[in-house]
Amino acid sequence: MTNKPDQLAPRLERDTLALGKTTHCHIRLMNDSRWPWIILVPRLEIVTELHELTAESRSALIDEATLIGSFMQHELGSESINTAMLGNVVTQLHCHVISRNEGDPGWPAPVWGFGEAVPWPENTLPGFAKTITERLNL
Amino acid sequence: MTNKPDQLAPRLERDTLALGKTTHCHIRLMNDSRWPWIILVPRLEIVTELHELTAESRSALIDEATLIGSFMQHELGSESINTAMLGNVVTQLHCHVISRNEGDPGWPAPVWGFGEAVPWPENTLPGFAKTITERLNL
Repeated sequence: MTNKPDQLAPRLERDTLALGKTTHCHIRLMNDSRWPWIILVPRLEIVTELHELTAESRSALIDEATLIGSFMQHELGSESINTAMLGNVVTQLHCHVISRNEGDPGWPAPVWGFGEAVPWPENTLPGFAKTITERLNL
Repeated sequence: MTNKPDQLAPRLERDTLALGKTTHCHIRLMNDSRWPWIILVPRLEIVTELHELTAESRSALIDEATLIGSFMQHELGSESINTAMLGNVVTQLHCHVISRNEGDPGWPAPVWGFGEAVPWPENTLPGFAKTITERLNL
């Protein structure tokens, strides 16, 4: 991967909606209303693996993912927060934070590759995404 | 969950082999030779979500998972390291670190819930697991 700050893989750009940026990460909403699903993408170093980030960027990514998981669970009462970096399909390092509940589509299996995305209504951010933008001052 | 140090959920105990313990984590090998697959389980605080750990325990968990992912990739030349905390089935917080390659069983889908585990030969640790035990002084 090149190391051009703010670069976003075309598939990440296409499948997600921008919520804003922190110093270290793009914060994006997966455009799939089946699950509350946030994606964080490190902005300053474009890498493929977590161990390739500097310690500072890694801490920032994990701290922000953890905060988002916490906001999400408190806002939504999620039974489980899935936090994951896979990169099998999109190699640019990105971190998924997903709210899961018994009975949601696909429960308890992972969400990746499950059925077809159901986009959020246009021009309407869900409440949890608004909360996240407010709490992170995006 | 109770907060009894060193507690391990029965399913984690059953599905994995002990490699050793660091100050903060149990380091376990998933007993499934289809993929090099390590599981880290925080030992000092037994929680269900990453945001419930103290900052110190969270940093230690992520630092160790990152180190293991790095060793694994350097040892095996993995195309992708999957690092994930799901908790939909086993609620005790645990972190998966898995070596993935194009053409492995299930690629590029996630490993969880895919087919049946193929146990490692008894009493024989794979090379990458030995490397991890050495590098982490387990």
